[in-house]
Amino acid sequence: MEVNDINMQSDNCEPDRAAHPGIFLCREAGKSDHQPSGRCVDFPVSVVLPAGGSGERTGLQTPKQFCSFLGRPLITYTIQAFERVLWIQSIMVVVAKENMDLMTDIIQRFQHRKVRVVPGGSTRHRSICNGVLALGEEGEGTSAMERPKVVIIHDAVRPFVEEDFLYKIAMAAKEQGAAGAIRPLVSTVIATTSEGYLDHSLERAKYRASEMPQGFTYDVICQAYQRCSESDFEFGTECLHLALQYCGTNAKLIEGPPTLWKVTYKRDLAAAESIVKETLSRSACIITGGSTQAVTLADALQKAVGALDVELDVIPDLMGDNARYLLKEWNFIQVSVSTSCLSEVEAMLGALEAANRALLHPLVVIWVHFSSMDELSVSGRVAEPAAIMDLASTAKLRNILLYGIQLHQSKEAERWERSVLRVAEIASALIRDRSPALVGQLLQA
Amino acid sequence: MEVNDINMQSDNCEPDRAAHPGIFLCREAGKSDHQPSGRCVDFPVSVVLPAGGSGERTGLQTPKQFCSFLGRPLITYTIQAFERVLWIQSIMVVVAKENMDLMTDIIQRFQHRKVRVVPGGSTRHRSICNGVLALGEEGEGTSAMERPKVVIIHDAVRPFVEEDFLYKIAMAAKEQGAAGAIRPLVSTVIATTSEGYLDHSLERAKYRASEMPQGFTYDVICQAYQRCSESDFEFGTECLHLALQYCGTNAKLIEGPPTLWKVTYKRDLAAAESIVKETLSRSACIITGGSTQAVTLADALQKAVGALDVELDVIPDLMGDNARYLLKEWNFIQVSVSTSCLSEVEAMLGALEAANRALLHPLVVIWVHFSSMDELSVSGRVAEPAAIMDLASTAKLRNILLYGIQLHQSKEAERWERSVLRVAEIASALIRDRSPALVGQLLQA
Repeated sequence: MEVNDINMQSDNCEPDRAAHPGIFLCREAGKSDHQPSGRCVDFPVSVVLPAGGSGERTGLQTPKQFCSFLGRPLITYTIQAFERVLWIQSIMVVVAKENMDLMTDIIQRFQHRKVRVVPGGSTRHRSICNGVLALGEEGEGTSAMERPKVVIIHDAVRPFVEEDFLYKIAMAAKEQGAAGAIRPLVSTVIATTSEGYLDHSLERAKYRASEMPQGFTYDVICQAYQRCSESDFEFGTECLHLALQYCGTNAKLIEGPPTLWKVTYKRDLAAAESIVKETLSRSACIITGGSTQAVTLADALQKAVGALDVELDVIPDLMGDNARYLLKEWNFIQVSVSTSCLSEVEAMLGALEAANRALLHPLVVIWVHFSSMDELSVSGRVAEPAAIMDLASTAKLRNILLYGIQLHQSKEAERWERSVLRVAEIASALIRDRSPALVGQLLQA
Repeated sequence: MEVNDINMQSDNCEPDRAAHPGIFLCREAGKSDHQPSGRCVDFPVSVVLPAGGSGERTGLQTPKQFCSFLGRPLITYTIQAFERVLWIQSIMVVVAKENMDLMTDIIQRFQHRKVRVVPGGSTRHRSICNGVLALGEEGEGTSAMERPKVVIIHDAVRPFVEEDFLYKIAMAAKEQGAAGAIRPLVSTVIATTSEGYLDHSLERAKYRASEMPQGFTYDVICQAYQRCSESDFEFGTECLHLALQYCGTNAKLIEGPPTLWKVTYKRDLAAAESIVKETLSRSACIITGGSTQAVTLADALQKAVGALDVELDVIPDLMGDNARYLLKEWNFIQVSVSTSCLSEVEAMLGALEAANRALLHPLVVIWVHFSSMDELSVSGRVAEPAAIMDLASTAKLRNILLYGIQLHQSKEAERWERSVLRVAEIASALIRDRSPALVGQLLQA
C-alpha cells in the first residue's frame, strides 16, 4: 500500500480510461495508491471473492467483511487491492442473498469498477463455485469480457494482498494448474485423543498453513467442482485439495508475506485500521502561499516532523505543475500569515472535492494560522473561530477533516523552536488519529 | 480486563498488604483492575515467563516484549495479568543476559511485585529450564517462598490471559501432571513435498493449535528437563511433548479463549493497544461541584454518551465516600461553571497523583468549562488559555492527560442539545485516543 504514483504515467502507457470494457486503470479520482509493477500478464485473470461469512469470531453483529473502519467497509479495501492491478479484468464478489443489496450499494458508493456481485450458496465451496460459474457466463453479458484463463480465489477479509504476490500466484497457476499461498505455522499443531489429552505433536518444519490467495486455471477449478461430491461441497474447505483429488493437479505452494493475514477477530479490525492509518500518514504537503514567513515556518516544520517519521513537501500553491499534489498527497497543511486566509483553505477544499480525493479515505487538511504577534493574547486569536468550525462541518460531509492550529511568532529563539515542535507534534497527531470529533478546532501551538 | 474492584474488599477478606512474603494483593496504588474470582487454589503456584525472543517477526528493532504502547512495554501488561491473581505466588521472568538491566528497570519503574528476573539460555527450552530451576532455589533466598506445586509457563507476548483460564490450567496440571491451552486451527494445515508442491492436507477437526499457558507439576517439568536430550534443548519447542516423552504424562488439553493470542507482528501491537484503550475508555466520572447548571449539563452528557457506549457516573466532588472514585475510575470530567475553577482541576490532579493512579496507564482528565453566555464571543473565552496548557504540561510528566472543553450555554434548545452532544463526542474521542500531543488544548463545543 505504498502511496506512490508520481511516475505512473511514464511507467505505463495505457490511457486514463478503460481500453477494453471491464478493464479500468486505477488512476481514477481518489484511487491513486497504485504500485506500478511493470509486470506483464498476457492472459485474462479474474478474481472470485467469497464474502459470505457470518463473522461469528469477531464477536460483532455485522459480518466482518462489512465492518467499517475509517468510514469504509473492510471488503472495499480488499476490492481496491485487486482493482488497482491492471491485469485483473474482473472481480466476482459472492455474498449471501440477504446482503446482495448492501454489497451493490457499497460498490456504487465507493465507485468500484470491474466488480460484479453474485449470490452465494450455503457453504464456502458452493459460494466459490457460484462465483466461478458466473465468470464463465460473463461473455454473454453486455461487456465483451474474455473467459478467464486463470481464476484467483481470495478472502474478502484479507485486504492487504499485494500485486507482486498475485502475479506469482497467477503465473504459477497458469503453469501448474493450481497454486496457493502458504505461511509457516505460528503454533505447534497437536493431535488430541478423543478424551481431550495430547496424542502427539506434529513436526512443525514439515507442515505449513494454507492461506489465500489461491489460483487455478479456469479449466481445473471448473472440473474440480463438476466432479466433487456433495460431501466436499458441504464439509470441504480447501480448494487445493479438490484440485488434487479430482484433477490430479498438485498445487504449487508459494510462501506468502505476513501481509496476507486474515481479519478474524475484532482486534484484527483495529490492526487493519492502524495499518491503513499509518500508510495514510506518511507524507503531507505544506502550502505556503509564497510568503517568506510561511516558508521559514514550513522549513522549520520539515525538520521537526522528519524526527516524527512524516515526509513533508513544501510548495507555494497548487497551481500549474503543483496541481499534481491534488492527486498525489493524502494530507495538506495550509500556512496562512494574515488573518483573512480561510479563503485559501476554502479554495483548497474546493479543489480536493473536485478531484474526488476523499472518496476512499478521509483526507486531512490542517490550517496553520501564523500570527506574528509576540504575545499570546486574547486579541491574537482568529476573529471568528466559528468560521473554521462551519467550514469544517461542511468539509466533513465530504470526508475531508479540517483542523486549525494557531501559532504565535516569538523573537525568543527557544520559545519559537518549542512552538514549531508543537505544531509538528499536533499536526502529526491530527494526521495519524484522523479524529472526526475534533474537526473545526483551532488548536494552540 | 474488566475494570471492577468496587466490591473487592467484601469478596475477599485478605488484608491490603501481603500476608505472606511474596504474596501481594493487587489493590495497590494504580493496580485496581482485578477480577475477583472467588476461586480457591490451596497449593503454591508460580509462573515462568520466557521473554528472550528477538522479535524478528514484528519487523521492529526492539524485541516485541519490550515494545511499548500507552507508555508501557508489552511485558509489563503480561506481568500485571499474573500479578493481580492472588493465588500466584511468584513470577520468574527469563530474559536474555543483555536485557537483565532493562528488565530490572522496568520492574522498578512500574512497581511490579512478586517478580524475579533470571538470565535465559540460548534456546527457548534452556530459558524455561533456567526459570524452573530458579523457582526451586527461591527457598534459599530472603523470602520464605514455598517450592511451587504447579508451575505455569506462559509467553511474555500474550498479555490478555485471564484468571479463570489460569485457574483451569493450574487445577488440571495438579491433577494430571501437565495441562495446556489449545485453540482451533485458523488455517488448513498442509504437508508439502520437498519440491514445494501440495502433498496432502490434514483434516482440520482432528488437530488443534497448541498455545500458552501450559501448566506442570514442579516434579514433572523438572524431570522432563533432567531427562531430555541436548537435541530437545536445542530444537524442541513444545514442553507438553517433553512431559509425554520423558515422564509418560499425557497433558490435559483445554480449549482457551481467543484472548490468549500472541503478539507476533507489528500490527498486533496496534491491536493490543486498541484492546487496552477500549478497556480504559468504558467509564468516566463527572464531577459537578454541586452547581445546578453543572448537574443539568452532567445529566445531559450522561444521556448523550450512553449512545457512545461510555458509562458515566455523576458526583458532586471527591470528598468522603466519593474518594473511592480515585481508586475506581480511569477517567474524570470536571465541570466548572465559573471561570476561576482551574483550581478544582488542580486539586483533582493532586489527589490522583497522591493515589498513584497513573502509574500503569495514562489517565484522562477533562475540564469542561461551562460559560452561561448566550453568544460565542471572544470575551467568553477563558481569561488564560495559557494556564490550562501549563497545568497540562506538568500533569503530563506524571502520566495524566489534561484537556479542556469550552461550552457556551444557549437558550435555544436545539443549539444547546447540539453543543452537549459535541461535548460528549469530543470527550469520548479524547478519552479513547489519549493523544499526548493534544494535552492542554481548550476545545470548543
